Amino acid sequence: MKVLVTGAAGMLGRKFCQELATQGVIAGQKVESLTMVDIVESPPIPGSPFTIRSVACDLGSPGVAEGVIVDRPNIVLHTAAVVSGEAEVDFDKGYRINVDGTRYLFEALRKANNRPRVVFTSSIAVFGAPFPEVIGEEFFLTPLTSYGAQKAIGELLLADYTRKGFLDGIGIRLPTICVRPGKPNRAASGFFSGIIREPLNGQEAILPVPDTVRHWFASPRSAVRFFFHAAEIDGASVGDRRNLSMPGLSATVGEMIESLERCAGADRVKLIRREPDPTIMRIVEGWARNLDASRARSLGFQAETDFDEIIRAHIKDEGIKL
Amino acid sequence: MKVLVTGAAGMLGRKFCQELATQGVIAGQKVESLTMVDIVESPPIPGSPFTIRSVACDLGSPGVAEGVIVDRPNIVLHTAAVVSGEAEVDFDKGYRINVDGTRYLFEALRKANNRPRVVFTSSIAVFGAPFPEVIGEEFFLTPLTSYGAQKAIGELLLADYTRKGFLDGIGIRLPTICVRPGKPNRAASGFFSGIIREPLNGQEAILPVPDTVRHWFASPRSAVRFFFHAAEIDGASVGDRRNLSMPGLSATVGEMIESLERCAGADRVKLIRREPDPTIMRIVEGWARNLDASRARSLGFQAETDFDEIIRAHIKDEGIKL
Repeated sequence: MKVLVTGAAGMLGRKFCQELATQGVIAGQKVESLTMVDIVESPPIPGSPFTIRSVACDLGSPGVAEGVIVDRPNIVLHTAAVVSGEAEVDFDKGYRINVDGTRYLFEALRKANNRPRVVFTSSIAVFGAPFPEVIGEEFFLTPLTSYGAQKAIGELLLADYTRKGFLDGIGIRLPTICVRPGKPNRAASGFFSGIIREPLNGQEAILPVPDTVRHWFASPRSAVRFFFHAAEIDGASVGDRRNLSMPGLSATVGEMIESLERCAGADRVKLIRREPDPTIMRIVEGWARNLDASRARSLGFQAETDFDEIIRAHIKDEGIKL
Repeated sequence: MKVLVTGAAGMLGRKFCQELATQGVIAGQKVESLTMVDIVESPPIPGSPFTIRSVACDLGSPGVAEGVIVDRPNIVLHTAAVVSGEAEVDFDKGYRINVDGTRYLFEALRKANNRPRVVFTSSIAVFGAPFPEVIGEEFFLTPLTSYGAQKAIGELLLADYTRKGFLDGIGIRLPTICVRPGKPNRAASGFFSGIIREPLNGQEAILPVPDTVRHWFASPRSAVRFFFHAAEIDGASVGDRRNLSMPGLSATVGEMIESLERCAGADRVKLIRREPDPTIMRIVEGWARNLDASRARSLGFQAETDFDEIIRAHIKDEGIKL
């Protein structure tokens, strides 16, 4: 198997590449090579059993994607994207990377004509309020951010390119990934991870929304499992509707904080400082709180069912000493 | 009011321009000028009370839209598109005209910075089977044609550009327009008009699907009324969900033929030749049969409620002698 990962220097892209090196196998077959693509140089993956090619390039520029897919990959994980906060501030950059970049990549794959499995990371940002408490599988996409609109366009392209036989796409609508390790990124949802991650590191975290805010989560571990599973499921069993809401865990900020107390003690919770931010509150009000992910579950996708599990995985994966 | 019409040489664009010349007024204000744009030269509109500029150009080429909107129109009717049949055969042309052309136009309007009302003609082709007998207002868009995917992308762009304040868009999902006058176009839905139009002209028509096929219709008159109404409604009352399923009439092919017999006699009906076409039948199976258009109706959009009315309007508008 030849694997291509775009956004390989990003948090999820990198975790996937590391896991790929550990497993050495995807979709039941040995990995022969990995191409890691990002706008910056992707960090090396130590101890990989296969050849790695690393390409630093801008997929939003015409003609670049052709060079990236020159070895005709069998599996493409397309995570490269401008995140929600940045796409909202820089309209042109968001469309250039998230729409044009995706389309250039799909076009290059179409021309290469080997019909790879393409796993496209979409987002629950494709949904916009008002919506029911639990968003159903047939609920329409009315994004309220440019990022959400761009991901919804990516979903439509993926489905159409798949229908035409140009590639074999599976779009996966990721829940908000929590706990994100490392530094905050520019996503407006960043505080959901911050209020767990910073206290665990003995640092103060700012909570800009009320404790009653409910949201939809999965861990980085689950996301990586989604990628592997999306790479191997039978496309025919998915049918024409190629974009799937991934399973997740619906939790309130209050429930997350109770989990933090159970996992790390009351002192850590005291590091959360409540500082309401009307702009973030307004954005968050437009976000999904709970989804029906029964299609994805029936196809074998699985996520955490308990927030404690998410926090404990973070503590273990990041080697945090409490 | 300065009005711009793209696709002005097309059937609906032309009918709108003619009606605009007759009325001289849109959205309660006098029309000062009209720019007619199409890939071919738009036929002149005799007796127009306002200045007309006609531009033959390719909106799918970069840099063209800027020249088209140079007089900063107040109202833009964007109907220019490659139709469903052609977009399915010529993938590149469909995306170039229907996606890139729409985006270039919206970008040019954004840069001109006068926030016009943009009426975008979308289509029920944004829906794809399986769907309920009546497609609800919150049903998701899963197009099964490239044309449908391209229109769904246009809807997302329209909503996002409107949300950002770059323009003031209203997307209208047109039913299949029936009876289309003139020659057949390359839409796969062409036979729906053909089985009425050709017999009324004393010519044979081919019916490629069974009489039980049900579909969703409005007349060209209704479409033109939709355009005028979409140009004048209060955007704030529409909210963030800028794309509206237009009202229509749900009828079976059998009911259409009964209507033809009532309006024009049994001899005309004998001109319909049944010649089943599996390809067209398969396409038609993926099309909407009935829609809930209550949002559009509550905003004042109206259509025919009786197929006889549609046929009689065609006979009158086209000056057909029976």
